[in-house]
Amino acid sequence: MTVRVGVIGAGWIGTEHIRRLSTTVPGARVSAVSDIDRERASSVAPQGAAVLSDSRRLVESDEVDAVLVASWGPAHAEQVLAAVAAGKPVLCEKPLATDPADGLRIVEAEHAAGRRLVQVGFMRRFDSGYRALKEAVDDGSLGTPLMAHCAHRNKSAQSSYTSDMAARDTAVHEIDVLRWLLDDEITTVQVLAPRSTGKRHPHLTDPQFMLFETAGGVRIDLEVFVNCQYGYDIQCEIVGEEGLVRLPDPAAPRVRAAGRESTAIFADFTGRFAAAFDTEIREWIDGVRAGGEPTGPSAWDGYAATVVTDAAVESLTTGGAVTAVELKPRPALYGGAA
Amino acid sequence: MTVRVGVIGAGWIGTEHIRRLSTTVPGARVSAVSDIDRERASSVAPQGAAVLSDSRRLVESDEVDAVLVASWGPAHAEQVLAAVAAGKPVLCEKPLATDPADGLRIVEAEHAAGRRLVQVGFMRRFDSGYRALKEAVDDGSLGTPLMAHCAHRNKSAQSSYTSDMAARDTAVHEIDVLRWLLDDEITTVQVLAPRSTGKRHPHLTDPQFMLFETAGGVRIDLEVFVNCQYGYDIQCEIVGEEGLVRLPDPAAPRVRAAGRESTAIFADFTGRFAAAFDTEIREWIDGVRAGGEPTGPSAWDGYAATVVTDAAVESLTTGGAVTAVELKPRPALYGGAA
Amino acid sequence: MTVRVGVIGAGWIGTEHIRRLSTTVPGARVSAVSDIDRERASSVAPQGAAVLSDSRRLVESDEVDAVLVASWGPAHAEQVLAAVAAGKPVLCEKPLATDPADGLRIVEAEHAAGRRLVQVGFMRRFDSGYRALKEAVDDGSLGTPLMAHCAHRNKSAQSSYTSDMAARDTAVHEIDVLRWLLDDEITTVQVLAPRSTGKRHPHLTDPQFMLFETAGGVRIDLEVFVNCQYGYDIQCEIVGEEGLVRLPDPAAPRVRAAGRESTAIFADFTGRFAAAFDTEIREWIDGVRAGGEPTGPSAWDGYAATVVTDAAVESLTTGGAVTAVELKPRPALYGGAA
Amino acid sequence: MTVRVGVIGAGWIGTEHIRRLSTTVPGARVSAVSDIDRERASSVAPQGAAVLSDSRRLVESDEVDAVLVASWGPAHAEQVLAAVAAGKPVLCEKPLATDPADGLRIVEAEHAAGRRLVQVGFMRRFDSGYRALKEAVDDGSLGTPLMAHCAHRNKSAQSSYTSDMAARDTAVHEIDVLRWLLDDEITTVQVLAPRSTGKRHPHLTDPQFMLFETAGGVRIDLEVFVNCQYGYDIQCEIVGEEGLVRLPDPAAPRVRAAGRESTAIFADFTGRFAAAFDTEIREWIDGVRAGGEPTGPSAWDGYAATVVTDAAVESLTTGGAVTAVELKPRPALYGGAA
Repeated sequence: MTVRVGVIGAGWIGTEHIRRLSTTVPGARVSAVSDIDRERASSVAPQGAAVLSDSRRLVESDEVDAVLVASWGPAHAEQVLAAVAAGKPVLCEKPLATDPADGLRIVEAEHAAGRRLVQVGFMRRFDSGYRALKEAVDDGSLGTPLMAHCAHRNKSAQSSYTSDMAARDTAVHEIDVLRWLLDDEITTVQVLAPRSTGKRHPHLTDPQFMLFETAGGVRIDLEVFVNCQYGYDIQCEIVGEEGLVRLPDPAAPRVRAAGRESTAIFADFTGRFAAAFDTEIREWIDGVRAGGEPTGPSAWDGYAATVVTDAAVESLTTGGAVTAVELKPRPALYGGAA
Repeated sequence: MTVRVGVIGAGWIGTEHIRRLSTTVPGARVSAVSDIDRERASSVAPQGAAVLSDSRRLVESDEVDAVLVASWGPAHAEQVLAAVAAGKPVLCEKPLATDPADGLRIVEAEHAAGRRLVQVGFMRRFDSGYRALKEAVDDGSLGTPLMAHCAHRNKSAQSSYTSDMAARDTAVHEIDVLRWLLDDEITTVQVLAPRSTGKRHPHLTDPQFMLFETAGGVRIDLEVFVNCQYGYDIQCEIVGEEGLVRLPDPAAPRVRAAGRESTAIFADFTGRFAAAFDTEIREWIDGVRAGGEPTGPSAWDGYAATVVTDAAVESLTTGGAVTAVELKPRPALYGGAA
Repeated sequence: MTVRVGVIGAGWIGTEHIRRLSTTVPGARVSAVSDIDRERASSVAPQGAAVLSDSRRLVESDEVDAVLVASWGPAHAEQVLAAVAAGKPVLCEKPLATDPADGLRIVEAEHAAGRRLVQVGFMRRFDSGYRALKEAVDDGSLGTPLMAHCAHRNKSAQSSYTSDMAARDTAVHEIDVLRWLLDDEITTVQVLAPRSTGKRHPHLTDPQFMLFETAGGVRIDLEVFVNCQYGYDIQCEIVGEEGLVRLPDPAAPRVRAAGRESTAIFADFTGRFAAAFDTEIREWIDGVRAGGEPTGPSAWDGYAATVVTDAAVESLTTGGAVTAVELKPRPALYGGAA
Repeated sequence: MTVRVGVIGAGWIGTEHIRRLSTTVPGARVSAVSDIDRERASSVAPQGAAVLSDSRRLVESDEVDAVLVASWGPAHAEQVLAAVAAGKPVLCEKPLATDPADGLRIVEAEHAAGRRLVQVGFMRRFDSGYRALKEAVDDGSLGTPLMAHCAHRNKSAQSSYTSDMAARDTAVHEIDVLRWLLDDEITTVQVLAPRSTGKRHPHLTDPQFMLFETAGGVRIDLEVFVNCQYGYDIQCEIVGEEGLVRLPDPAAPRVRAAGRESTAIFADFTGRFAAAFDTEIREWIDGVRAGGEPTGPSAWDGYAATVVTDAAVESLTTGGAVTAVELKPRPALYGGAA
């Protein structure tokens, strides 16, 4: 069986997913593409795929077995809800929703439907380095986790990047991956502002230093620095009672030349997480073909991430106050208490 | 278009390729499997695939667009020649031939056919680390290559592993990948025997220390050690006039525990080169779909490897004499003089 | 000229310094040793050295050119003041004083004397790794510093180690070395408590996570974890506008064995900073012989460290409040405004 | 007791040792300096030291307890023999002798004297990295050594550097340190010539690739490359039956900037082995003060190094022939058979 995927959104990420579904992932075919800009949809749709401007028609099409949402963030929630209503598996790029209330509606819709259909596009869970980290944390040899030290650095940010995006667009990846690594919920957030770099647009607070506390008492610190100049750099270290483990840097040849030994650092996330994106889509398609529920990040994870990033933005705008993260009770569907 | 692949040989590597073609690589389908043990073929063939005991019938089948040879080494040459005769693309696991004369027959058959159909299964050329190494060598920043220092270590070898296999089965991977990295032919081989490890079957000379000289004057040294006990470990360093570059170890989390910082080493080649195998097959299928000639290791590369390994075995059996590698002239089809 | 050194305190660190002065450092001789336990002093004094129970007589002795204070912390201030009064160079193990007021008295005494005589025993400033870090920060290539990420881990702490000692005895080293690396004063401190490790004595808060802000706006985070089990581990990373630099781990052979590549981690600070202690004493003696003022950590640095650690303890005991560090104006003697 | 050292030779290395003895090493004093250029001796001699042009008078002076030979290589043997005749400890910079016969005369003179007085200045045995390597080899955890892979790279060589110096001046350090690490004698040498670098003076064969075999069957390969352009780089890996161990690179801060993570490489041996030189001299002086025999590299080690380097030069000049190393029987004084 070949999964016929309808892709909503023909921007950069949607186009990347169409390429991936067409040339890298077996068992799938892009059968429809929609975009509010119909011409753009047309320009990236594979031969034979339907081209639409209305995402709702795409979701409901008989030619579409599963939906991939890669549209503008504010549109995500309605599109995901439509897929759930249609009973179709849906992979939604982050964020699942731009508002916690919308995220909760999706959680409730799944709960009502009685089964999970939604996966959120947090690709790091599919990165081989993070998976090895998860294994090391889970095998117990390092003891109970106590702290995590993280950094998320981008080379530079455009002027459209605003201070709240440090949480919503950037830190959100760590927020998800740490909830998963630690199997724990975040309960408080605090966002501090070190001296800002001169290499930023003046409206931006950059870097930001974020502190999270989990239900289990783990302290997480995260440097978000989106104008670090030197490259795209993701660091994560988990400290347990008996030892620690550190996310590997991507393998790169070591060069000795001109007085230094050096290795290259990726310039952006597309290179750094290329294989993770491939694995994410491949495993999602495999799951759809197998007919089971998705095993990747759930609607609950997407909802929780939105609540945490909202709290982070609130902390930043209130001068670094410790801000509580208030989640609704987790339905049994997601492993919560019944 | 989906490429219908006929797989010859249902042993370990054949089974792996069937799995890969069925679940990892888009655009392909295993349409036939043959093995001299028909039952074995039957047990690994995907649903709907033809099962045969005669490889010739597989090659000629209308249901087969391309052939993957994963049988016993001594059978390779005839099977590849059959595919060339049938005008079908063929990917042949190493060795292309167990005898240089057979390798040459394939080269000549392609030459006669006027186009390349054969690719040899040297998967390292598809490893991201080796590719980055190749890029570093080719970009010129390190100057002309002068030397290469290599090591190929396996955890342990079974009693069926004989001293000549150190060249034929083990070093053959370095022989191919270094010819490719340096874009140069090997002209002499010398195989020396350090003190043998106590951790080997008594009939075996292990480790072996191999020295190669290329037409361009590059000196290559290669430690082959197939009972190193600690893991599967591949090292390669190219030294040029201005600097050097080293093959990266696979990325792995760094752990600090019990008084040491450490990273895991792979136990065998299947983990170490899993992604390389995937890429090899994916790119081969992409090429077949595109209808062009294969861009991977050619019949000429397979022939050259056989001549070099023969010379290495001769050097070992003659007590370490410097042994000349005598290749026929390279046909223009492979980039040689017209 | 040989510097005749009087050593106050014959405990572990005093004994180490006596050994160092006798066998590792040229140009010095231990001429007197005092300890409230006269027998202990006698057991470690080199042949020919005077043995005293009264530190004041040691300081005033004609046989003593310079004083090394290695006694119990609460006694330091009086002994240092006596040395200053006698006009003799004095190297005082940390802390300079257990109370900021005492530290200030020393600063004022030096100020009154019109020249620096006091050096505080923060040995990290003499570690080759920290010195290379300082050079990298100072050469400007990384831009203005914005953040520092640090960790100070000990294998295990005895039951006599109390929660306040995390600041006073442990973090105090980072406090000094970061003030020096950044050439900046710390202005606020906050101490947070992650989940405590099960591998501690029950009265202890361990690990502690400390946050510092400097006058220049640099944010420093410091994990203090004194029961980390795996070894003695010191980490420090300075992030600037253009790049970052990380303190090197001590050089150690890389071993490949039993499925892992690994390097040894020191068990405690004596191995980790052995060379730094040697350099500290050697440079101090060289300075005394040259007759100039000491170039190592000053009385001001010792005073500032005491004020910062006091604020850290206050933050810990008040549940993690951001606590201001209030320093008196820095006298011109130490590079402050006149 | 202060050891009064007479230094023969006031060139670069002699001057360095005078500085070291005067300012870094306790328990010693330079009491006399000689050089055939009396003025040069005068310009570097510390105040109060005798200045001579005749090394024999220095050796015999009542003001000299121990002799440090840092003159021109061809003069070493006679000066060392004079010291042995005078019954004085002598540290001789490498080479002990420029001719094996002279080295043997020294060995015989010590044998006749019935005790060891001579130490040869192979400073690597005092490097902390090599010492950790030695410990790892000796502790047995890696099993019996089978191979060693080494590289000795210099940034560039002056026009006065001739092809034989690759063995005599450069490889001689590896020859000594590997005999020590492996506790084994070298029995054959072979020197091969890879393609020469364009970055050399035309008369020079550079790089050279050297192969050694030991009595115990260990194979050693050594790249000597004295115009590698990028820095001074010393590599050494010992492969045993159960695992391997690698000489650490010197600790250096890791910098992330401009798209790369990098660490600095030393420019020359003076930085790389500065601490090793200090330790060498300090331990030699300690030994002289203690009155025992030297524990560093012996006259036998100096003699053996000369025989091996002679064989290496012979191999190079005969086109890479395997050349036997023929040592006289080792006297019991050096741990040989009685």
